[in-house]
Order: sequence, then structure tokens, then C-alpha cells
Amino acid sequence: MGYDFTVYKGSKDGSIQKSSTHRDALKRDEVLVRITHSGVCFTDVHYRTTDMALGHEGAGVVEETGPEVQDLKKGDNVGWGYEHDCCGRCSKCLTGWETFCPERQMYAAADLDQGSFASKAVWREAFLFKIPENISNEDAAPLMCGGSTVFNALHVAQVKPTARVGIIGVGGLGHLAIQFAAKMGCQVVVFSGTDNKKDEAKKLGATEFYATKGAKELNIGEKLDNLIVTTSSQPDWKLYVGVLNPGATISPLSVDLEDFKFPYMALLGNGFTVQGSLVSARQVHRDMLTFAAFHGIKPVKMTYPLSKEGIEDCLKTLEDGKMRYRGVLVA
Amino acid sequence: MGYDFTVYKGSKDGSIQKSSTHRDALKRDEVLVRITHSGVCFTDVHYRTTDMALGHEGAGVVEETGPEVQDLKKGDNVGWGYEHDCCGRCSKCLTGWETFCPERQMYAAADLDQGSFASKAVWREAFLFKIPENISNEDAAPLMCGGSTVFNALHVAQVKPTARVGIIGVGGLGHLAIQFAAKMGCQVVVFSGTDNKKDEAKKLGATEFYATKGAKELNIGEKLDNLIVTTSSQPDWKLYVGVLNPGATISPLSVDLEDFKFPYMALLGNGFTVQGSLVSARQVHRDMLTFAAFHGIKPVKMTYPLSKEGIEDCLKTLEDGKMRYRGVLVA
Repeated sequence: MGYDFTVYKGSKDGSIQKSSTHRDALKRDEVLVRITHSGVCFTDVHYRTTDMALGHEGAGVVEETGPEVQDLKKGDNVGWGYEHDCCGRCSKCLTGWETFCPERQMYAAADLDQGSFASKAVWREAFLFKIPENISNEDAAPLMCGGSTVFNALHVAQVKPTARVGIIGVGGLGHLAIQFAAKMGCQVVVFSGTDNKKDEAKKLGATEFYATKGAKELNIGEKLDNLIVTTSSQPDWKLYVGVLNPGATISPLSVDLEDFKFPYMALLGNGFTVQGSLVSARQVHRDMLTFAAFHGIKPVKMTYPLSKEGIEDCLKTLEDGKMRYRGVLVA
Repeated sequence: MGYDFTVYKGSKDGSIQKSSTHRDALKRDEVLVRITHSGVCFTDVHYRTTDMALGHEGAGVVEETGPEVQDLKKGDNVGWGYEHDCCGRCSKCLTGWETFCPERQMYAAADLDQGSFASKAVWREAFLFKIPENISNEDAAPLMCGGSTVFNALHVAQVKPTARVGIIGVGGLGHLAIQFAAKMGCQVVVFSGTDNKKDEAKKLGATEFYATKGAKELNIGEKLDNLIVTTSSQPDWKLYVGVLNPGATISPLSVDLEDFKFPYMALLGNGFTVQGSLVSARQVHRDMLTFAAFHGIKPVKMTYPLSKEGIEDCLKTLEDGKMRYRGVLVA
């Protein structure tokens, strides 16, 4: 009894290995999902040399439901992201912050035998998100981590519709952040290395665009109330101190092993808030999907077949800095 | 016409110079204050080598009022702190954040001809605080900056009465922070170099006390929701990451020219907030005084005469790390 399905794993030399995994018959609120699409996140690049099933921007169709499933049914389009489970009874879970549950089960730390680079997966209903009707599975997949992460940064920072929001980086995260902030009513001020992505950024909703390569100082007119940092490593923070309003909130999202190193007296004297955050907790994630559906927010994609070659192609494009702007694997 | 009065200034060699200053007849809402007491802050140590009048924890008695003064009258006990003026019409002023007004007038940047190490001073009524009846001027003076700074940190961080609040450092700021947090209903967890100040900290309201000198790791049981840092320079941040709850807010208050250097992925992964702040804006300052009066919160003091010798003695005690816990100059 149970299910055998294909998963694609990382390996020591960074090549993608086609493999298979087994899950037992569905228990409690477990759901068997047939995967139709997976977004590809830079985190997957980080784990391509680890022996684990990759992928955490899943989208698919419910194929079977466990005995305690309440709302989902066969044929529903669903997605999932970084978090697979939590304890449900700690102070974090009880206050809608289950992403900080000490027993949280997350990508790359739990359930290493399955991911969204796969033919199927078994997840708890409680951690699956119903995809709104007017979002395709292909468009939904990148929202499951990329969209969730930037929407949560905006949410946690309590960005106001009247704010001037700076966004550093136009990539998988940044190009979604621009759209969310613009649809929230904000003035969106984008910083990118060169002018290459200027037209695209403006089309996505950027009000202003500044190329920062080699800049010793930034001149942007009115200062910013928020700064969302979506680059793959930390920016030169000193460069941005002068463009932030006192009381501004800085939301760093880069994955970076270096320390956070910020001009200290500027942080105090300007009353800046530095706000760490992860992906959305579930209700925020649901709000994100509803908001995206309502406003027609969609990722700009490059698609690849969901196969060893497709994954390797996609990861290479990402590592080469050539992704415009999110890779999606299509089953 | 006008007023001549004594002020004590810093000087190149760090000695205190008795000097005098002149202010014209009172205009608009200006108030002439006869100074009875001044608190002494570590900031004054920083400026003792600058040619400027020192002191910004003033307390005194209204001696004369200008033509547009509305509420204060001769004989009222009043105090003032770091901020002397603001524009009153910018977005910061209009939202109760006048401490971030771009035209703010602050100690060591404006009105360098007068301070609270002086016989008198002329300030706008708008920036004077009436001292509550059951607080003496001697007790009120250290609240004007030290009290204001720590109360504001607790305010801006939105500390909850149910929180476990860590306070690093038992000094001029820390010993007030302990009292405020305790009276707010919090569990107060104090960190200090050695056990020297343990008994005093407990008397002030600390629930737990940990000596940190040489500690490689801290074991404190339940983790903290807030961390208020009152030491004269930044602590070893790595040491504290492990004792903070996910979602905790860190409020650094040290004056330090080094960068803020914090483990970056811990900041993101735990959703920490790093919250820069200054002294209170005026309404928060008023609330602080009311709260202190209601709960009988008082500084622990060492008093000195308000004279060249008294100031020099007091600054030396402070620089030697021997102040218990706030120096007050008495006129």
C-alpha cells in the first residue's frame, strides 16, 4: 500500500539525480498532490549539492485525500511553500506566527525525501493552499515562496499605502515585490545594478528606477519609508542610509552568511527599524493569494520541463544571473 | 535688557570652564528657568572636550514667562531634556515624532550657549515639562534624558506587560529601565558584567540577574521577548541571539561609533526586530513622568554641587564606572 513517485534530488557534485520515494497510505489530513508545476528559488541552488529532494514552490492537483481531510477534494488546484508542519499549540502557533514554531517543519530541514521537483507529494491539508480560480498553477507556483516572502516583508513592516517603498533588486523576489507594493498604492522606488531592467520594472509598477552600480551616493528626491532588500547578497547599507526617512523600516531578505553590518549611530539617530522576516505564516499567505488574484499579479516566467535536464538548465540560468524573473518547471 | 547667567562649558583639555551667557528679553513662549538640579549623562562626558555649554537633564523653577506663554507660571517646577525645538509643521512633527523633525534643535547641535550645567536657561514653553507634584526636582532631572530614553525604547518596542524583558547594563539608563519594565508588569531579566549590582537590581525590580563577564553562553530558562541594551558600548550580540524568542525586539541604546554587527541569518530566521530610538517625543515624555509619579519610580543618585569642581568630580566618577547610578548636580 502507499505511493511511489519520482523526486529530483541534489547531489555532492551539484548534478540533479532522478530518484524515487515511497509514502504510506494517507493518514489523518494528508493529501496526495500530483505536481503540475514548481517554481525554482535561489535556495534550491544552495541545496543542489545536498542529498535531498529539491523544490518548495509547488503547485498541483489533489489526487487523493486522507480520512480527516475537511475542505480539499480531488481535482482542486493547490500549492505549498517552505513550511510543512508546526506543533499547533505553542505561543507562536496560537498567535499566527507558526513560521517561528520551535517544532516547525521546513524545507531542507524536514521531509527531505520529497519536494516540488517531483511527480507527486504528500502534505498535510493544513499546509496546502487552494489556488484561486483566476490564477493558473504555472503562475501560482512562484507565489508559494517568492511571493510569500516579499508579501510577508510588506505585511510585517506594516507598509502603508501612502508610503514610498524602496525595493533593491529586480529578480524572482523583487519583481513580485514591485507589483505587490504598487497595487497596495505605494510609490515604488526600484534600485538595480544597471538600467537593463528599467523598462520591465516600470511596466511592473515601479514609479522610479535608479541604477546603483558604482554609485557613491544616491539622489532620489523624497526619502523612503520602507526598504525591501531582495538581492542575493546584502547591499552596501551605507549607500542607503541617506535615502531613508527617519523611522523607516528596512526589511532584508537576502540569504547571506556574512554578518549584518550597518552604521550604528545612523540606526539609532534615525530610529530605523530593521525587520527580520521569513515566508508568510498561513493566513498571510492566503491573503497574499487573494490579493494577487484580485489584482492580477503574476510572476514573469521562464519555463523548463520538470526533468533532470530541465532542472539543471533552470538552475544554470539562475546561477548565471540570467533568469527573467522566475523559473518554473512544467510537468 | 535681557539676562546674564552662569554656564559651565567643555574645553579642549576636558576641564570644565565657568563662563557666562546672555539671552535677550523673553519673546513669544520663552520661559526663564532658574536651575535647581541637573542630571549628568554619559553624553556630557563625550562633549566635555567641546567648547559648548554642557548638560541636558535640567530641572528648575520658572522665574519669568514670555508674552505668549499659556500654561506655565512663575514658581512652577519644570524640566527639559535633549530637544529644544522643532518645526511643528513637517510630517514627523504632525505625527508625534518631532524628535525626527529635520529642523529639530537638539543638545550639542543647537543653543550651544546654554545647558543645564548653569544657573539659568531660557527655553520655549513647548519644550519644558511640568514636574509632577510628588517628584522632587532632584529626582526629576535624571528622568529628562535617561528616563526619557529608556521609557521611549520600551514604548517604541511596544513592550507588553506579559513580556519577558532583558535589560543589559545597570547604570544611569539601566537602573531606570528595570523600574519602568517592572512597573509595566514585565518579567525583568538583567544582565550585568559581574554580580556587584545584583542586590540593587533585584531591589529595583529585577526578577532574574545574570553576570555575563567571560560567559561563552547564557542560560536563562525561558527566552526573552525584548532586549533593552543600556551599556556604554555595544554588547557581544552573538551571546544574546540564543536567549531571544523568535519575533523578539532588540532596542540598542548605547552610544557607539562602531558599526552594528549582528549575525545576519539569525536576524532573518528568527524574525527579530532591531529598533533604533532616541529620547521620547513630548507626549511620550509626559506619559513617562506621569507613570514615574504614579509608581514612585526614582533614580538612585549621587549628588554633587553645581560648580566647576562638582561637575568635574561627577564626570570623573562616571568615567571611572563608579556612578551609582546617576549623578545629579545640585545648585
